[in-house]
Amino acid sequence: MSAFVAHGGRLSAACARYGGTPEDWLDLSTGINPEPWPGAQNYVPDWRALPDPAALTRLEAVAASHFGADPATCAAVPGSEAGLRALGEVLRQFPLAPGPLTYSTYAKAFGSAPNGALGPTVRVLTNPNNPDGTLQTRAEVLAALDWQEAEGGWLIVDEAFADAHQGASVAGKVREGRRLIVTRSFGKFFGLAGLRLGFVLAPPALLSALRRLHGDWPLSSAAIDLGLAAYADTDWIGQARQSLPRRAQRLDTRLARHGLVAQGASPLFRLVSTDRAPSLFEALARAHILTRPFEGHPKLLRFGLPDSDHALARLEAALTRWSRDG
Amino acid sequence: MSAFVAHGGRLSAACARYGGTPEDWLDLSTGINPEPWPGAQNYVPDWRALPDPAALTRLEAVAASHFGADPATCAAVPGSEAGLRALGEVLRQFPLAPGPLTYSTYAKAFGSAPNGALGPTVRVLTNPNNPDGTLQTRAEVLAALDWQEAEGGWLIVDEAFADAHQGASVAGKVREGRRLIVTRSFGKFFGLAGLRLGFVLAPPALLSALRRLHGDWPLSSAAIDLGLAAYADTDWIGQARQSLPRRAQRLDTRLARHGLVAQGASPLFRLVSTDRAPSLFEALARAHILTRPFEGHPKLLRFGLPDSDHALARLEAALTRWSRDG
Repeated sequence: MSAFVAHGGRLSAACARYGGTPEDWLDLSTGINPEPWPGAQNYVPDWRALPDPAALTRLEAVAASHFGADPATCAAVPGSEAGLRALGEVLRQFPLAPGPLTYSTYAKAFGSAPNGALGPTVRVLTNPNNPDGTLQTRAEVLAALDWQEAEGGWLIVDEAFADAHQGASVAGKVREGRRLIVTRSFGKFFGLAGLRLGFVLAPPALLSALRRLHGDWPLSSAAIDLGLAAYADTDWIGQARQSLPRRAQRLDTRLARHGLVAQGASPLFRLVSTDRAPSLFEALARAHILTRPFEGHPKLLRFGLPDSDHALARLEAALTRWSRDG
Repeated sequence: MSAFVAHGGRLSAACARYGGTPEDWLDLSTGINPEPWPGAQNYVPDWRALPDPAALTRLEAVAASHFGADPATCAAVPGSEAGLRALGEVLRQFPLAPGPLTYSTYAKAFGSAPNGALGPTVRVLTNPNNPDGTLQTRAEVLAALDWQEAEGGWLIVDEAFADAHQGASVAGKVREGRRLIVTRSFGKFFGLAGLRLGFVLAPPALLSALRRLHGDWPLSSAAIDLGLAAYADTDWIGQARQSLPRRAQRLDTRLARHGLVAQGASPLFRLVSTDRAPSLFEALARAHILTRPFEGHPKLLRFGLPDSDHALARLEAALTRWSRDG
């Protein structure tokens, strides 16, 4: 399973190992909304001109409004993963504080403390956490910030999956003088991960260093156009906040029939813990259903949301075979 | 003119200053091919899934073949400007060697030497140079590399405009053990600058540091798809290499009628030097034609290629009014 433990979405590797073409596969290995924002469906980008800096500024304002944040603290980045990599450079004197199982990029973006070294760190708090879906209250997050500030470090709150949880974000607390950074992802909630669009909210001085790294055209024309339209589509955003938990509930019901208890608050992905996770991953992969295992955590398997009743039935059939044959 | 001296393509700023909407303007402020590769015209990207790492690897191989380079030295980046910013981080211990008037990003991406300090530098040699179009031979470029290596520094050859000059590239000389880096741009020659696609060719150890900075999804799905198809379209590439010089010749003829002598080897942009450059910029801007002035060089004005006979006639009419009224 080594090809599949770093990130989800490795369909090419799955085809090479288990056969089939990408179209044959049901990809449940990511936490991407399977019902994407529909405005991108027939959109033909005009790629000819350089992206317009004024439109980029408008996008940052519209997105900041969606996050409940001050536009002066908001920079668009080519994906929240790229934003985290840039933060690793800007904060390179701070080692990463140890934490629970979470997104694998943090360890790649940030340095680790020399053995036994004490001192200020950068802590990444993922809210809700990926993969276990733990959602912390704003009070809990702000208490973690106080702690980091008392130590002279920084707190990054990765809100990549936060759009589904109205009122959970601390983006509005980012300001000059506080050591708080928030990262946001566009592609997960809006179901358009191939666009590469994310945001970093940080105190203005730190934001300038980050902007210097990503340069004068951090986004493609399409990312600006689609981001502007999607963040302004408050009707769709409200509907998605209602429909995602219903989809997650339907998945949980199917998993429960086979003794798999889904945990966590995020409707974009569901984590199960079972001694039989390796055989479950294999059985599903042989049925061309890709899930997400985790290195060093052999009991865990994460499920993204099936995109249709047909996909749900296909998962159910594979689970039934696994239960029967296992 | 301060809004227009950093980069071309500032149409929003032009509208704010001189009126009109972007559609009213003839934008000659960039060096982008006005006849783009046609494969993007009706292309509707599928943004739903994360970009496929295997497809990214294929793109790097196809692009390396177009550059005449070893694929092991080739990393795709979200625009050559972003690639230069990342190189500024990776090579941050080397100050930028002073050079002639050239692309403004270099000074933003790289640090400058403390006053009077000696020591190894990173030199950026732009070939052909922007804005004067000077094209150096491979022997000249490699002599500059020997010089940098003897000093313990690095040579970056920015070949953003090199696609029009077959045989000029030194991309094939990049290998472990040499202190040579080449940057390439997709958007200029292929006329699709909004896509944000470029490449850095560097020795593998340096390339790893750069890949770490741009993370696991450096490109959008569309950049991978279109790049793969465009670099493989050798028929179109051959035709563009023939048609661009003809377009540049037609522009030069019009400029010459008004005493403006275009210089340089690049068919993607033409530089003129005249005492009356400020009045020429203003006269053209009032006719909603945007050209490219340069800070600290009041005699220079750069022209991109008009996209049609109609655009050429519109430029000619504005030049005639300027000649008559000046």
